Amino acid sequence: MEKTVREQLLPIEKVFRDPVHNYIHVQHQVILDLINSKEFQRLRRIKQLGTTSFTFHGGEHSRFSHSLGVYEITRRICNIFARNFSIKDNPVDGWDDSNRLIALCAALLHDVGHGPYSHTFEGIFETDHEAVTVDIITSPETEIFSILNKVEENFPEKVASVITKQFPNPQVVQMISSQIDADRMDYLLRDAYFTGTEYGTFDLTRILRVVRPYKDGIAFTTNGMHAVEDYIVSRYQMYMQVYFHPVSRGMEVILDHLLKHAAKLYQKDANFFQLHSPLLVPFLENRYTLSEYLKLDDNVLNCYFMMWCEHPDPILRDLASRFLNRRPLKSVKFVANQDEPLIAEMTEIIEKLGYDAKNYTAINSSYDLPYDFYRPNQKSVRTQIELMEHDGSLVELSKQSSLVQALAGETHGDERFYFPKEMYQPASDLFQDDTRLFASYIHNGKIINPNKKSN
Amino acid sequence: MEKTVREQLLPIEKVFRDPVHNYIHVQHQVILDLINSKEFQRLRRIKQLGTTSFTFHGGEHSRFSHSLGVYEITRRICNIFARNFSIKDNPVDGWDDSNRLIALCAALLHDVGHGPYSHTFEGIFETDHEAVTVDIITSPETEIFSILNKVEENFPEKVASVITKQFPNPQVVQMISSQIDADRMDYLLRDAYFTGTEYGTFDLTRILRVVRPYKDGIAFTTNGMHAVEDYIVSRYQMYMQVYFHPVSRGMEVILDHLLKHAAKLYQKDANFFQLHSPLLVPFLENRYTLSEYLKLDDNVLNCYFMMWCEHPDPILRDLASRFLNRRPLKSVKFVANQDEPLIAEMTEIIEKLGYDAKNYTAINSSYDLPYDFYRPNQKSVRTQIELMEHDGSLVELSKQSSLVQALAGETHGDERFYFPKEMYQPASDLFQDDTRLFASYIHNGKIINPNKKSN
Amino acid sequence: MEKTVREQLLPIEKVFRDPVHNYIHVQHQVILDLINSKEFQRLRRIKQLGTTSFTFHGGEHSRFSHSLGVYEITRRICNIFARNFSIKDNPVDGWDDSNRLIALCAALLHDVGHGPYSHTFEGIFETDHEAVTVDIITSPETEIFSILNKVEENFPEKVASVITKQFPNPQVVQMISSQIDADRMDYLLRDAYFTGTEYGTFDLTRILRVVRPYKDGIAFTTNGMHAVEDYIVSRYQMYMQVYFHPVSRGMEVILDHLLKHAAKLYQKDANFFQLHSPLLVPFLENRYTLSEYLKLDDNVLNCYFMMWCEHPDPILRDLASRFLNRRPLKSVKFVANQDEPLIAEMTEIIEKLGYDAKNYTAINSSYDLPYDFYRPNQKSVRTQIELMEHDGSLVELSKQSSLVQALAGETHGDERFYFPKEMYQPASDLFQDDTRLFASYIHNGKIINPNKKSN
Amino acid sequence: MEKTVREQLLPIEKVFRDPVHNYIHVQHQVILDLINSKEFQRLRRIKQLGTTSFTFHGGEHSRFSHSLGVYEITRRICNIFARNFSIKDNPVDGWDDSNRLIALCAALLHDVGHGPYSHTFEGIFETDHEAVTVDIITSPETEIFSILNKVEENFPEKVASVITKQFPNPQVVQMISSQIDADRMDYLLRDAYFTGTEYGTFDLTRILRVVRPYKDGIAFTTNGMHAVEDYIVSRYQMYMQVYFHPVSRGMEVILDHLLKHAAKLYQKDANFFQLHSPLLVPFLENRYTLSEYLKLDDNVLNCYFMMWCEHPDPILRDLASRFLNRRPLKSVKFVANQDEPLIAEMTEIIEKLGYDAKNYTAINSSYDLPYDFYRPNQKSVRTQIELMEHDGSLVELSKQSSLVQALAGETHGDERFYFPKEMYQPASDLFQDDTRLFASYIHNGKIINPNKKSN
Repeated sequence: MEKTVREQLLPIEKVFRDPVHNYIHVQHQVILDLINSKEFQRLRRIKQLGTTSFTFHGGEHSRFSHSLGVYEITRRICNIFARNFSIKDNPVDGWDDSNRLIALCAALLHDVGHGPYSHTFEGIFETDHEAVTVDIITSPETEIFSILNKVEENFPEKVASVITKQFPNPQVVQMISSQIDADRMDYLLRDAYFTGTEYGTFDLTRILRVVRPYKDGIAFTTNGMHAVEDYIVSRYQMYMQVYFHPVSRGMEVILDHLLKHAAKLYQKDANFFQLHSPLLVPFLENRYTLSEYLKLDDNVLNCYFMMWCEHPDPILRDLASRFLNRRPLKSVKFVANQDEPLIAEMTEIIEKLGYDAKNYTAINSSYDLPYDFYRPNQKSVRTQIELMEHDGSLVELSKQSSLVQALAGETHGDERFYFPKEMYQPASDLFQDDTRLFASYIHNGKIINPNKKSN
Repeated sequence: MEKTVREQLLPIEKVFRDPVHNYIHVQHQVILDLINSKEFQRLRRIKQLGTTSFTFHGGEHSRFSHSLGVYEITRRICNIFARNFSIKDNPVDGWDDSNRLIALCAALLHDVGHGPYSHTFEGIFETDHEAVTVDIITSPETEIFSILNKVEENFPEKVASVITKQFPNPQVVQMISSQIDADRMDYLLRDAYFTGTEYGTFDLTRILRVVRPYKDGIAFTTNGMHAVEDYIVSRYQMYMQVYFHPVSRGMEVILDHLLKHAAKLYQKDANFFQLHSPLLVPFLENRYTLSEYLKLDDNVLNCYFMMWCEHPDPILRDLASRFLNRRPLKSVKFVANQDEPLIAEMTEIIEKLGYDAKNYTAINSSYDLPYDFYRPNQKSVRTQIELMEHDGSLVELSKQSSLVQALAGETHGDERFYFPKEMYQPASDLFQDDTRLFASYIHNGKIINPNKKSN
Repeated sequence: MEKTVREQLLPIEKVFRDPVHNYIHVQHQVILDLINSKEFQRLRRIKQLGTTSFTFHGGEHSRFSHSLGVYEITRRICNIFARNFSIKDNPVDGWDDSNRLIALCAALLHDVGHGPYSHTFEGIFETDHEAVTVDIITSPETEIFSILNKVEENFPEKVASVITKQFPNPQVVQMISSQIDADRMDYLLRDAYFTGTEYGTFDLTRILRVVRPYKDGIAFTTNGMHAVEDYIVSRYQMYMQVYFHPVSRGMEVILDHLLKHAAKLYQKDANFFQLHSPLLVPFLENRYTLSEYLKLDDNVLNCYFMMWCEHPDPILRDLASRFLNRRPLKSVKFVANQDEPLIAEMTEIIEKLGYDAKNYTAINSSYDLPYDFYRPNQKSVRTQIELMEHDGSLVELSKQSSLVQALAGETHGDERFYFPKEMYQPASDLFQDDTRLFASYIHNGKIINPNKKSN
Repeated sequence: MEKTVREQLLPIEKVFRDPVHNYIHVQHQVILDLINSKEFQRLRRIKQLGTTSFTFHGGEHSRFSHSLGVYEITRRICNIFARNFSIKDNPVDGWDDSNRLIALCAALLHDVGHGPYSHTFEGIFETDHEAVTVDIITSPETEIFSILNKVEENFPEKVASVITKQFPNPQVVQMISSQIDADRMDYLLRDAYFTGTEYGTFDLTRILRVVRPYKDGIAFTTNGMHAVEDYIVSRYQMYMQVYFHPVSRGMEVILDHLLKHAAKLYQKDANFFQLHSPLLVPFLENRYTLSEYLKLDDNVLNCYFMMWCEHPDPILRDLASRFLNRRPLKSVKFVANQDEPLIAEMTEIIEKLGYDAKNYTAINSSYDLPYDFYRPNQKSVRTQIELMEHDGSLVELSKQSSLVQALAGETHGDERFYFPKEMYQPASDLFQDDTRLFASYIHNGKIINPNKKSN
């Protein structure tokens, strides 16, 4: 009986037009049902890139569209594995296609627990999208659980175990989560497409031609080395140029201060929020149910920010309005463990001009590790990318590629000090001396010691 | 002094990365200020395509991104006109570049009065986005007015007069509003890009090469005829395949029923809405100010729909949840003035199964006139597209192009009858006879007379 | 034994990187052998677009690349048919995959008999590329025959019968040759890509989604109607804007005159050609073998034209040099059966200025019929395009599409009179009166009666 | 008077449709005349990529199309410099637009001296395309000289001095020739487009936004660092994956052997070549005039190879036919200064099977230095890429970019040993022992010591 559901194929394949993959092909009734579930439809209301669309206005796509993309790449990998590298022909290293539906479900659902502006929201309200993903998949109250549970007993748990990387088949786990997985491949291509940046473009077709299963996971044939290189470089470029863009981070800082300030005000006077932001209250009170979590989305938060523009507290009003009307904090690079005294001096000037430093300045570090090989002693261990020779032997990627070696094991990014834009463009001449002094700390976009400018 | 503002160019041109036009180039301080105004930033929170993204999931872009695109195309036309067809060299037909800033502002702001889900919302609450656009531009309370008013006295009114087509220079008016204007050109390309459909693609670069000013407006050289043809066909294809997609209309029908039902419930019991949908109340009461209008956006409506899922009225709850969770009504084509009796019979079956026909069925006609020549006696007169010969004489497009002639003067589209999807997929076997009867009215996607099926 | 060869798949699929289809996938040893045959490699030395690259400089691709493309589209159709519409499941209308190799070979080889500048060459030397294609496939002397003949007895003849449309299975025939076949689909996309024109772009993926086999050939589901429409319009646009470009035709006219003049000179004095153009001699003598035909290509002709620049005859020298150095004749549109007397007058002026009319003027008509339905009484009968309803019934395309109806059954193109560019730009002032008179016959790119110019 | 010619603009700009840059815009009469000169039209008959199209069949574009592209990129840089960084506003670092026509002419003509299959041909016949370029520009016998000489006295010499890097303005020189110049930018984009490989794609628009003139040449603003990085990586990828492809090099080896063998045979018996390859004779005799050089092109060589298939010498026949019919030598990687003894052993086996090692084996090393900073003591000094800070100070690229640092100063590529494909696929079983022995020297695509295989 369960077997029937697992293998229940749609009489006619259903497709979703997709600008990145052309078509998303849905062949299983289970997948179609999951897409139609209300928990999955909710992802339409959560932007994939958060505040990035304030900088790259095209990047307004949702986690819904990304999730379909991850599913589709996974489906294509399964097809290639099933046709060319089936376990029937390769009993040691081959792909067992009975794992297909688990892989597809995990791919589709891997982000289903994301909330609005996750990056920022999680830090403040101590939510954890991965834990919520597992919850949504395994809680009997969700539509998703009901759909998965019809496949076979414990099917929801199996799907969840792929998300938590505990599923026994490493090929399935690495498809969804590794340094070159369906998730990353889709978001790089998708974010590049929608933002209109070409840096994220790499040759997916070529990568799919050289991907190979082996007993401990997924590898790439040696002659595909340059295609993998290209993917790593694209990833690096997207982080440097899109994800870490200083203006988006300037909006993120405002969002962070806004939510924190609301949380603080709630402690003093809960009434306004209970009346005008009811769906956020469980989070302000730090005790929420899954069902409450699932009611949150970008729309709800943005709608509440609109209401907060009328709140009696001037800082809440101002921060909410800055966020809605895109008035980011400005920033300057600095060198950690060196420029902090200078930042302290700059902060003093900012406060002198009437800005509360807690709400109007910030330190923001954004760093990414483009690639790393396996380092068993580190706390966050990475599955390294393996290249496969003709004879099946494996070589770790950075051993073959000097390009990847240059990026491996070293984080890239920068540290920035954020402050009100007004520090640079004084509304009146009144504070001119102060802003002139402030400006003397900045040269070529970096913090300098104004007394040593000559160097 | 005013002159200074008009000509105030940014020290360094500012650009916005755009996937459709590569870069949006901003050269005037006024334009940058308009983009940064809160009324314009609000367009980020209104989707360009309304319910279409329920069918084409990539189509989640906002009116903000479209408005920048219209501005950019207008800017490029101005550049071409100024360089090659200046009024200095062509005193009769040439372009007077002192109109540039007016054209750019009108292009940027032409959609600034749009509200959430305009198409549906306007029908129910009797708002009018064009009138609001004029209001936003000319009301002293807006940031946009302040910015424009610094340019010169009456500048806001001049910009508004382009929107209302009363500006004396027909070249400026037709750039923004005609059968082949910057608005249409941007939305076809943009909607095609984001939805991932290629039908809307035409050769903008080529069209910009053949566009010419003349004393009564804008024309295209004869040797660019095929480029214009291609644009008309693209437009037709986008309407047929994207804008009129039956599933998006099935969601629009739900939205329409949902808002109407809310309006009706408000008459009976205003309390729930006053508490949980405060920003919508002015519209439910049919008296709103500009400032109230500007607080509405997609986020606010969607947030309220989330609250309505808890309303005591089961139909409101159900419709709200169908909208949020994408449960469109299903549909079938019919022939107007012929199949109505059959629809009445089908509606009876639907009601027999417990669905309120008013809330769960609908007739939806979607028709577009891809192109028409000037017909002075019709109520909605169109500026026809003119081709310009080497010697400057003009010929109307459909006289030269058999392709356009085939599309001219005839509306294209269809009429559909919408009903609950459950009529096709009964949840239980109980109603099987009824649903089987219902199904007998449908053949090849059209309504048929079940008693004459053999024909 | 024969069966073995037919089914002999490559151990690992071989791919060719292709800018239009991304990859060309080769799975059969037979196909790889055919590609490597010397008759097929010869297609690398014959441009797909002849003189068109003199206008669109990017269009320098060869028939080799197009032939691979036709093969690839055919392969994809076979895959779709085999997976979804196999004769096993649809005994009446389904696809019998035992025809696959025949279809693939016919697709790959359908143009293998083309010679250099076919369009022009065939007219002069009475060759026929389709007859040669059949010859190459069925003559025991060719490598292609040897490869095909190993598959099974009479396999070469079967493949040839697809080319001549006599193969019994109409699905195979229509894949390769119908109004919407793999050949046309590839060349439209490929020519558009290489020339950099977007008109030829249509949505191949979508067309492949809606293609269906039925017992009398190939149809398209009704809901794919707009995709087929788009293809027809693209085809029309490519003919109007690329294939019929007046400048390319101006070069074709020169080539035609050059070859004709050489043939005439050969009658008088064969010696020069025997010495300096040996591979062309069999054609100048109008008796050639297959082996001689296969030695000709664009390189050989162009090399000979280089030699002819030294021939004692000044007209041959001049025409050869005009061709190599791209000095096309200029042209003007005219109305057939009306403007001939005016052309006679213009020709007189041309001759008066010393140009031999036979070698330096020409009438060139280029017309295409974008689509037609089946008209049994016409000499060139066309297989009409059929749309398939849900219930399997068929409707002819132009019955459903007003766009196609506008193009159906009517040829599009123009008639042009070609003359030396010098008529417009006199080298000296000596002939100014004559050229001024000549110019008076031309207005807005068309021939006019200079005495009635006022009309 | 000369000034007139220099500034003579076309009444209407002329455009060439280009798939890479959309349109090539020609505004000067001089440029149009140069394009129409016979020396420039000759570039249509020389492929940009030589033997690469044997591997990437789309890469059949000519040097004509590339030269237009280099011109167009240069034109765009001039436009940007003239509008934003004119010497009028920046007397020290600005751009003097009176250099525009020189820059455009040099860009257009920089490759005009290339002959057929330059890479190989030059090695054998001791020609030098750069010297010929200078010759064509400065020799009174050419059309190009005549056109340039009308601009002003010594204008041809000035243009030539840009090619030889002796022109006094370093901005002009670096536009045409530096590590990131219009030449490289065009060929990377163009070769990527035509071959259908995405590796060569970088963001030209972005690079053009960040390019800046300064007194010693051309720099890029610091915030464009990642765009320049991307270009360097693209360049590296194109070399590794396209230009150094082993199969193309296997064809180049054949071409090299073929031409060398012909040169040797000519010494013994000149008659055949004088009769059947007259245009090549000056090169076989090692004394040629410019006019003779200009008659050579790909067509001529390929036509002669066709004739050589009938030469009495079996090796010439065989090599010519291998080249025309694409029968490349096969290859294997080896480690220089280590595997030579093994290659000697392999060569012995090859000779034992009857292949003349000189004509049927080869060593081919292909290395590229993706980027290097200025090293004054090296023989081939490179102009390093400079990044410009806000305050105008310069930093060398690899100092800022760890990615570029990883590629800088180190050549990338490989060394390969080429041998007849038949060594792997014996035509008969006769030599099976030998071929089996031969195969034992190869493992994972590299040469190994068969006696130590276990390692």
